[in-house]
Formats: sequence, C-alpha cells, structure tokens
Amino acid sequence: MSASESMNLLYAQSGGVTSVINSTAQAVIEEAGKQKSIGKIFCANHGIVGVLKEDIFDLSSLSQRVINKIGMNPGGVFGSCRFKLKDPKHHNRSFDRLLEVFSAHNIHYFLYNGGGDSADTSYKISQYANSKKYDLSVIHIPKTIDNDLAYTDCSPGFASVAKYVAVSTQETSLDLASMHVGSTKVFVFEVMGRHAGWIAASAGLAQTKDMNTPLIILFPEIPFDSTSFLKKVNSMVKAHGYVSVVVSEGIISKSGSLMKAQLTTDSFGHKKLGGVGSLISKLIEEKLKFKSHTACSDYLQRASRHLASLTDIKHAMAVGSAAVKAAIKKQKGKMVSIKRTGSKPYRWKTELVSLQKIANKEKLMPKNFIDKEGYGITTACRNYLLPLIQGESSPPFTKGLPMYSSFHFPILKKRLGRMNGYRILMVAPPGAGKGTQSAILCKQYNLQSIACGDLLRAEAKSGSSLGKKLLSYMQKGELVPDELIISIMSKELSKNKYSNGYILDGFPRTLAQARALYDKNVSLDVIIELRVSNATVLDRLGGRWIHQPSGRVYHTKFNPPKNIGFDDETNEPLTQRVDDTPATIKNRLAIYEQETAPIVSYYQDLCHRNDSMSLHSLNGEELVNTVAKKIKKIIASIP
Amino acid sequence: MSASESMNLLYAQSGGVTSVINSTAQAVIEEAGKQKSIGKIFCANHGIVGVLKEDIFDLSSLSQRVINKIGMNPGGVFGSCRFKLKDPKHHNRSFDRLLEVFSAHNIHYFLYNGGGDSADTSYKISQYANSKKYDLSVIHIPKTIDNDLAYTDCSPGFASVAKYVAVSTQETSLDLASMHVGSTKVFVFEVMGRHAGWIAASAGLAQTKDMNTPLIILFPEIPFDSTSFLKKVNSMVKAHGYVSVVVSEGIISKSGSLMKAQLTTDSFGHKKLGGVGSLISKLIEEKLKFKSHTACSDYLQRASRHLASLTDIKHAMAVGSAAVKAAIKKQKGKMVSIKRTGSKPYRWKTELVSLQKIANKEKLMPKNFIDKEGYGITTACRNYLLPLIQGESSPPFTKGLPMYSSFHFPILKKRLGRMNGYRILMVAPPGAGKGTQSAILCKQYNLQSIACGDLLRAEAKSGSSLGKKLLSYMQKGELVPDELIISIMSKELSKNKYSNGYILDGFPRTLAQARALYDKNVSLDVIIELRVSNATVLDRLGGRWIHQPSGRVYHTKFNPPKNIGFDDETNEPLTQRVDDTPATIKNRLAIYEQETAPIVSYYQDLCHRNDSMSLHSLNGEELVNTVAKKIKKIIASIP
Repeated sequence: MSASESMNLLYAQSGGVTSVINSTAQAVIEEAGKQKSIGKIFCANHGIVGVLKEDIFDLSSLSQRVINKIGMNPGGVFGSCRFKLKDPKHHNRSFDRLLEVFSAHNIHYFLYNGGGDSADTSYKISQYANSKKYDLSVIHIPKTIDNDLAYTDCSPGFASVAKYVAVSTQETSLDLASMHVGSTKVFVFEVMGRHAGWIAASAGLAQTKDMNTPLIILFPEIPFDSTSFLKKVNSMVKAHGYVSVVVSEGIISKSGSLMKAQLTTDSFGHKKLGGVGSLISKLIEEKLKFKSHTACSDYLQRASRHLASLTDIKHAMAVGSAAVKAAIKKQKGKMVSIKRTGSKPYRWKTELVSLQKIANKEKLMPKNFIDKEGYGITTACRNYLLPLIQGESSPPFTKGLPMYSSFHFPILKKRLGRMNGYRILMVAPPGAGKGTQSAILCKQYNLQSIACGDLLRAEAKSGSSLGKKLLSYMQKGELVPDELIISIMSKELSKNKYSNGYILDGFPRTLAQARALYDKNVSLDVIIELRVSNATVLDRLGGRWIHQPSGRVYHTKFNPPKNIGFDDETNEPLTQRVDDTPATIKNRLAIYEQETAPIVSYYQDLCHRNDSMSLHSLNGEELVNTVAKKIKKIIASIP
Repeated sequence: MSASESMNLLYAQSGGVTSVINSTAQAVIEEAGKQKSIGKIFCANHGIVGVLKEDIFDLSSLSQRVINKIGMNPGGVFGSCRFKLKDPKHHNRSFDRLLEVFSAHNIHYFLYNGGGDSADTSYKISQYANSKKYDLSVIHIPKTIDNDLAYTDCSPGFASVAKYVAVSTQETSLDLASMHVGSTKVFVFEVMGRHAGWIAASAGLAQTKDMNTPLIILFPEIPFDSTSFLKKVNSMVKAHGYVSVVVSEGIISKSGSLMKAQLTTDSFGHKKLGGVGSLISKLIEEKLKFKSHTACSDYLQRASRHLASLTDIKHAMAVGSAAVKAAIKKQKGKMVSIKRTGSKPYRWKTELVSLQKIANKEKLMPKNFIDKEGYGITTACRNYLLPLIQGESSPPFTKGLPMYSSFHFPILKKRLGRMNGYRILMVAPPGAGKGTQSAILCKQYNLQSIACGDLLRAEAKSGSSLGKKLLSYMQKGELVPDELIISIMSKELSKNKYSNGYILDGFPRTLAQARALYDKNVSLDVIIELRVSNATVLDRLGGRWIHQPSGRVYHTKFNPPKNIGFDDETNEPLTQRVDDTPATIKNRLAIYEQETAPIVSYYQDLCHRNDSMSLHSLNGEELVNTVAKKIKKIIASIP
C-alpha cells in the first residue's frame, strides 16, 4: 500500500484557543510522522468549517524546523472555529458532507482538538460514521483554558493561564503596594471563566511565603453578595492599605443572573460598556470612595505563550501523541485525558475516556477548594494548582521579540464540489426588496421560498390535527399562538423538498418566534438584513406592481416590466396591493420597527456564539443587481 | 568625620511606577555604597510624603543579596506617591518641613526618581534650599512609562512597556487570527498614554518580516475621526479577515475633548463604565457588526517585570548611578538624561540637564513618526523604538513564579515631632454636626475656624478696596459674585493667624466656588463629608439650641447642656434659630443637595489625582464622640 493509498489522518483545532494548543499540533504531526500505518497528515483550516469546505492543509512534508516553530506560536496556527453541529437525527446534511470529505481524501483518523463543544461534535461524528459504516477513528484531544472538562485532572491550556494570572497578580499587586498611599487602593483584575472559577482561583498562587499579596477572589460558583464583598474590601484596605480583587467574568448575582448581563443593560435595553471588572471597580469607588484601577486581560491571558507553563506544554504534547497512538489502534469516540498519579512529587499519565461519558459535563470548582468566606482558595486547591504551573519554556527571542511566525501551509487539492443547500432568512421592512431578492436567490440556488401565511392557510385546510387546532383559532378570530406556528413551520421544513435549502420570507416575525425556532433546532446558515430608510419605502411601495399568480414584483421606477402593466413572462396583467397607501405603509413600518427589527440583534448574538450561522446587514437602497451580487458573495462564503 | 557625621543621601520614588524603577534604586544603593563621601543611604517611604512624615528607611547596611532582589521587583519597593508641592512663594510650609527633615538627618544629597511632576518638585526643592542657604544637591532621576519627558532620548520604564505592548500585540493577533472565521474579527487593546502616543506606537513593532499583524494604532496626537476609523477597520477586515486596534487611553475627539470623558458620561451626569477601549469596541460592533474583544492592560503593562527590556534595565541603572556621581560632585537642580550617540549599532550615554529647562515640557510623538493616514508608525519611529526593546532579563523563577518579594526595611529613628498645620474643609448638610465637630477640632489642634458670612460682613465694613466692591453689591441687594468671595477668602487665608491651619465652614458652598478656590492655589489637606439622612436632620434641628456669643451648639436629645436652657461655660441663656422649622429645613436641605453636594465628587476627583489631599466620608448619624474619634484618626494620617 503506497502512502497515498494508505489511511490518512486529519487534525483540526476548535473553540477558543490556548497558548499551548500548537504544542499539541506539533506532537500530533511528529507522532503521526513516525507511524507507518498513517499515510498523509492533514489539518483542516479553521476546524470543522474547513472540513465542510474541503479546505485542508497537507502537513505531510513539513520540515522539523517549521514543526518546532508551530509549537512556539500562541493562537491556533491552523485556525479555529466555533461551529456547532446539530443533532444528526434531524440535521444530517453536515454529517453526510463530513463523511464525503473524509472519504474523498481517504481520511480514517480524525483528531479534534477542542473543549466541551468539540467533544460533543467528536462524539456525534463518531456515532454517525458508525451508523453509516464508515471506518473512522475519532479521538478528541482536550484543550480549554477554563479547565472545566470532566474526566481529566486538568485541561491543556489552563495551566498556562493559571501561571499568567498568578504572575500578573503578583506583579500588579507590587505596583499597587507602591501606589496605595493617597492614590489607588484597589486593583480589579477581570479574568476569564464563564461558569467555573479555576482561572480566578489561580490568582491565589500569587500568595507565597515571600509575597504578601492582599487578595480577594470572586468565583462564579459563589453568588456575589455586594454587602459582604464591600465589607471584605474595606477590612482588607484597613488592614493592608490596599487589596487586589481578581474577578471571574462569569460571576452571578444572588438571583442567579450573570452580573455582566444584569448590570450592563440599561433601561432602554441598550448594552452598557465594560465588563464585570469595571462594575466591581465602580461599586468600590461609589460605596467605599477608594480609588481603583481595572484591567481586563481578555485574550492576553490565553495568548501569553512567552509565559507558558512547561508542565502545560508537556501535557499538551502528551495528549497529542497519545491521540495519534489511540487512533491507529482503531479506538473510536474517545478522549485522551490526563490522570494525576502522584502528588509529591507530582506524577501524571494519559489515558482514554469514552466521549459518551464526557458530553455536556462541566467540572466546576469543588466546594473544598474555596475557603469558608468564599473569597480565597484552600490548601487543597493550592496543592492541586501548584504542580500545574511549574517550569518555563519561553520561545527564544530575536530582535527583542519572541520567535513567533505567520505560517502559510500547502493546500490540499479539492476533490469535491461545494456543499449545497442553504438555509436563509431575509429580514427587512416592507418595500426593502425582500421579495425581489428572494426570487433571484431561489432561481440561482434552486431554493424553496416559504411564505408563512400561505402555509398556515394550507395547513388549516388539510384537516390534520395541527390544522384543526389552527382552524379553531382562526374561526374564533383569535391570534394564532407562536408555538403553533412554529410547530407547523418546523414540520414543513423537515420535508424532503427543502433538503436543498430554503428562504424564510416574513417569518420569524417576532422575537418570540425567533427564539422558538431556535429551540426547535431549526437551523439557519445566513440571516440577511436589508436596511432602507422610511422615505425610500414610501417612495418604492407607491410604484409597486405585482403579478399575483407568480408573486413577481415590478416597480414603475426601479424595476419596470417590459410592457407597462403586464408580467414579463406570462404577459398577464399586474395589480397593485391595497395596503400600499402612505398611511398603511407608515403603520406597517412602525410594526416592523417594534416587533421584527429586534430579531436582528437576537441573531447577531447567536452568530457571535456560533460559526455555523452568520448575519449580514446590507444597504437595501442600492440597485437590485448590486444587492443581489452582494448576497451572492455572502452565499459563496458559507461552508 | 565618622559615617554618622558625614553627609547622607536620600533617595525617593514618585509618580506612577515602572517595572524597572527598582533597577534604578539598586544602582543608587550600589553606587552610593561605593562613595566614601556619602554617609548613610536613606530612602523615603512613599516619596516626598515619607520625607514630610519623617518616615525613612535606612538602607546603609542592606546585603548585596537583598539589593539584587530589590532590582528584580516590579512596582516601587519603597513606595511611591502623587504629591504635588505648591509654589513655595505662597505655600512654604511643606518646603520648610522638608529642610527640617533633611537637616535633622544630615541629608545633603536628595535623589528624586520620578516623571514630569517630580522634576518640577525637585526643581522647587533645589531652589528653595538655595534660597535658605541649605546645602542640598537635588538630582532628578527620570522614570516614566509615558516617555514624555523632554531633554532625554527616552525615559527609563518606557522601553519595557513598549516591549510588553509589542509582544502582547503579536500574541493577541495570533489568537485573533485563529478565531476570526465566523467569530471575533477585531481585537481592541487599550494601553496607557494620556497625551503622548509612545506606548500605543510601540504596538507597531509587532509587525515584523516573520509576522503579518494587521494593525490600526490610535494616537492621542491625532484627533479621532470615527468615519475614517470605521472605514479603515472595514477595509482591514475585508483585506485580512481581522484587525487589531491598539488604542491609547488619551485619544481625543475632533473637538479636542478626551474620548473617555466625552462618551462615558450619560445624560444624568453619571459616569458610565469602561474606558476608551470598550467605546471603540462598541462602535465597531454597532456600526460594522463585527464581533470584537477588548483588553485593557492597565497596571499589567507597567508591572510586567518578567518581560522587561534589558536595554531599559541598563538605562535605569545608569541614570541611578550617574545621579549619585552628580550629587557628590555637588551638582544642583539637574536631571540625568539619556543621550543617543549612535544608531547602527545603538549607542548611548548619560548626561546632566538643568531642571529649569525641563519643567512643564511634554514630549509628544514627532509628526514624522506617525504615518500619513494617522493609523501607523513610520520607519523613523521604528528605528527609534526598536533598539529600546532589545534584550531580556527576566527574574529567575522558583516554584513556577518569578522571584518577587515583599520587603521590610529598617526604619530610621525619628528626630522631629509631627508636622503641624492642617487645612480642613467640612462638607455637610445643615444639622449634620459640622459646627460641633469644627469646634472640637479647633480646640484639639489649635486651628482657626473661618465662617464665610462673618468674613464678608467684616470686609465690607473695613473700607478696603475689596470691601468697597463688596458693599456696592450688598447695597444693591445683588448676589456677591463668587470671584469676589474667593478673593476675600484667599486674602484672609494668607494671614499669619492661619499658619497653624484652619477649618473652612460653609465655604465653598458651590461647585464654582470650589473650582475658583483651587485655581487660586488655596491648599486643602482634608475634606470631611458628614452624611446624614433628611429624617435625622429634621429630628436634630428641631431640638437644637445655640449659645450665640460663642457659637456653641447644644441639643435637647443628643448633646444637652448641663443646665437646660443655659450655656455650659458662661451659663448665659441659649436661643433657637428661627430657620429651624420643618419647611425651612427641607428647603435648606434641597439647596444643599443641589448646590453644595456636587463639590464632594469634585474633591474626590482632585484627591484621586493628588496625594496631598484626601477626602473622607463619615456617617454623621453616629454619636458626636464617635465621629470626633474618626476625624482624629483621619487627621493623624495627614503627612
């Protein structure tokens, strides 16, 4: 069996990156290079998105010099993504595509390097490949700065953040100590950690026998009590003259809501500036009149490769090479975990855990790691954390800077066409050109357009149980509840005729419908917002003519039919809508602004959390063709 | 001459600290130790504040091991301060005290290590010592991360921040590069630099031949133009997929106001959360719909000793030892500067510059250092910056952390009593106990209480030119302008009878008066705010009795006279004020809330910028004696 015919390995990076994820990559490449049973070593560009796009690097012939340099870079040198695969029972389109790509490139080992979501993705892919009898060893390689993965003593990437936070807390506390007389008395340091307090906890390591570091830690596990907190700050400042407060971004109020969300939204629903660190700082300045400074380390903490923990690098490399070994042993649906086998001295080894166990488990700080008062760590926690931050391995410096690089890897030749099927939502006020653009898209990409109103009427007539329910509301002249609309829509969308994709037109129309759609697991790839001014809408709708049977829309000024008054294709007469009068248009615009426009922010937030969906806001005032071209470009960017 | 009789040296640290200021301290201690003409080596605790308090360390017998450890710590190991000395022509109290302390400890060499304000302080002290014929060599040792000191090629401390910012920009850009597909596209990094863009500029060093770092820099020297900026961000994201924005905290709008101040105050006058980084981030998310992340490095950037530039450390040590050498050569009123003597290879030396030249000069970025578009640096700037960040000198690590320490130095035995004379302002609504507490303080500390109303009446009667002006307003029944009141008050306060300190009672009464007082250079040491609820005021004032001739205040419930209705000391009858009726009291409280209460925030801001003033907010609901004890404790903390 020649190398090109033997089974190939694909590695990919996913989720928020760490400063040592590339050490894992290095180990994977090195270990795979040693294994004769592995043909080519591939890596997807930007995680699973790259697989879906068949956008893959061939790393088989990288020099050892380049491999070493990869291991020194922070970030993910192959690109990461936040792409969630839906349940394959209902949405198998992406899964089929993955197997197509794997098959096209003879990939039978898939190593996915990420956190909890990626573990879930790995598990689903492994199960799906099994069900389709495709021989695929899926191994999940853990990585997360949050350290919240279950069934592993720690997650590679965390220890380096812990070291960064401990060193930074020492350094900033020494700065604060020198400034506190008459000036800054409290330094607030915001660190990551949405649900688990591991990162914040590591600030506790700043307190050593040589370093007196007055410190308060705010954990997401302990509901924030401002009275008790301010009392603690006050007593620490009275005792030491100053205090450092290390706050996890995810702390919650007593009522269980995120402090960040709770306090950063003003009465108009606008988001206010600043994270939870600024809030804590403001609280202290207002209530205690102590001057404070605030730092928010954000990416700094997880990108500071120059301060990485050597122990972390060793972990990161070990899980990488163990994953390769597990894959060639045909292990399937496993995660490589780190097991602590000794404390003094610290000892550890890797082992395999079934991904089934891990999915959707989150490892918070155990109770005995947080002290009774809730503002510091215990000896047990210190004993757990301290071994993890041991050792340094800064990249060599050249010309004053670490030897970091931008890489350009050889790209694998594509063997497949683009993935097809797009699920598109158009959001726009009346008269923005939604209908026109939908029609163009349907034709161009062979999509089905779904008009919600038509569908409801059809369902009501069908005599189905849903239809009967629907009819009872309609007959009483009551509003059809969102829930029922969603049921009908999601039932409709699961039909085969939509397998090549669809355009939702005029639905969801409210925030409640948008949320319900999401809860029903109805996937969308692209949300396109068309923006137009009210003046333009008034101008446009006045001249709008429609061919009722086909739904084709014309405009006396912007898109006139060949023969004025008649449809281009059928030559049938055009009609004008009765609700295209100025007063009615204004009323429709107001309803849009109030009920529909808010779904744009909703989808914006969703897109920020998920790569598999994107939102694009276009200027609908431009020419029909210009807008259409822009939409085409957007569609081309979908994996 | 024995060591104790020979002339001693005092070193002190001032202003915002740097990660290498202790290298200067190390060099001063080492160099002074070598010089036979120097007796003891002293260091003030928290800069000039420590000198005023006679709070001094004796460093003469530190071991070399401890001296080495000092040089490795970030922050200022001897404590810093932000204490501005006023013009000695009008306010010689502090200057006399300094000479008293110098004289008491035979100090004739004073090395002050700080930025622009400390250069000014050093110059004033040097001039004052000359005028008093006290033999004192004052040498200013430069230090400032802002790099804005004139007459020196660079300021020690800056280069390490430049290195930190360049490395951090590389690291976070690599993180961003891996996340940008479908997720974060812009990383906003807020760095220090109120007026000068040197720190922000150093992000430009992140762009190297090995590192493609799409970058936009926002300098305080270039007024922020949001249209042009958003266009630039958009074009960078379109070209590269992502972009890093490094923003100086001090960027200004086109109208010249600070972006921070301009946009962080809402319509109610409340300060909003977050710095300029959050603002920029919000602007990008709102206008361009790109997801962004924001970091604010604050103290992190100037405390990261583990990433210090070796060149910076060499500069910091060189200026320290040069200062000692200059002092023993009896140089007076000089600053040690760094002069660049060669470019390729980089060469430099120290030289002395007269402090007279330096005072109040600020070195901004030259025009040819910022590129034409205004969002990047030029080759000239790169050539200037690059030599400064060369070389690394991390402290050794032990147990996973740098070898930082908390120090405890031997304290010099005091030879003087406490400095006397306090200038106190009491701010409180009517009935809070202001009069009572003023009376106690006047007695305890031999202070003069000044009632503004009495003073105006006296001046009007005096026939002086001010008095005549005053009379003309009074006779016409018009409000006396704030300006006139301030003139009379500042003239009064310059009288000898107030040299032991005073308490301002009922003045300033408005924000305008407070500002005018500050502009007239009238110093205050302590502002005491007494807080009480309206209900308490109503309760208290109802039972208030006054001894008119002395001003002594009694209360039937809280502070009854020995004989009801009669003064304790004179036994004269007590009277009740006519405006102590509920309706009048409510009206007075409303006026206080509207006109006087805002001065508390004003002074809070002033105090945050100046160590020589402090504001204390006390609960006026407590017992008279409890409040008096708290005030006594506050007074004890004044230098």
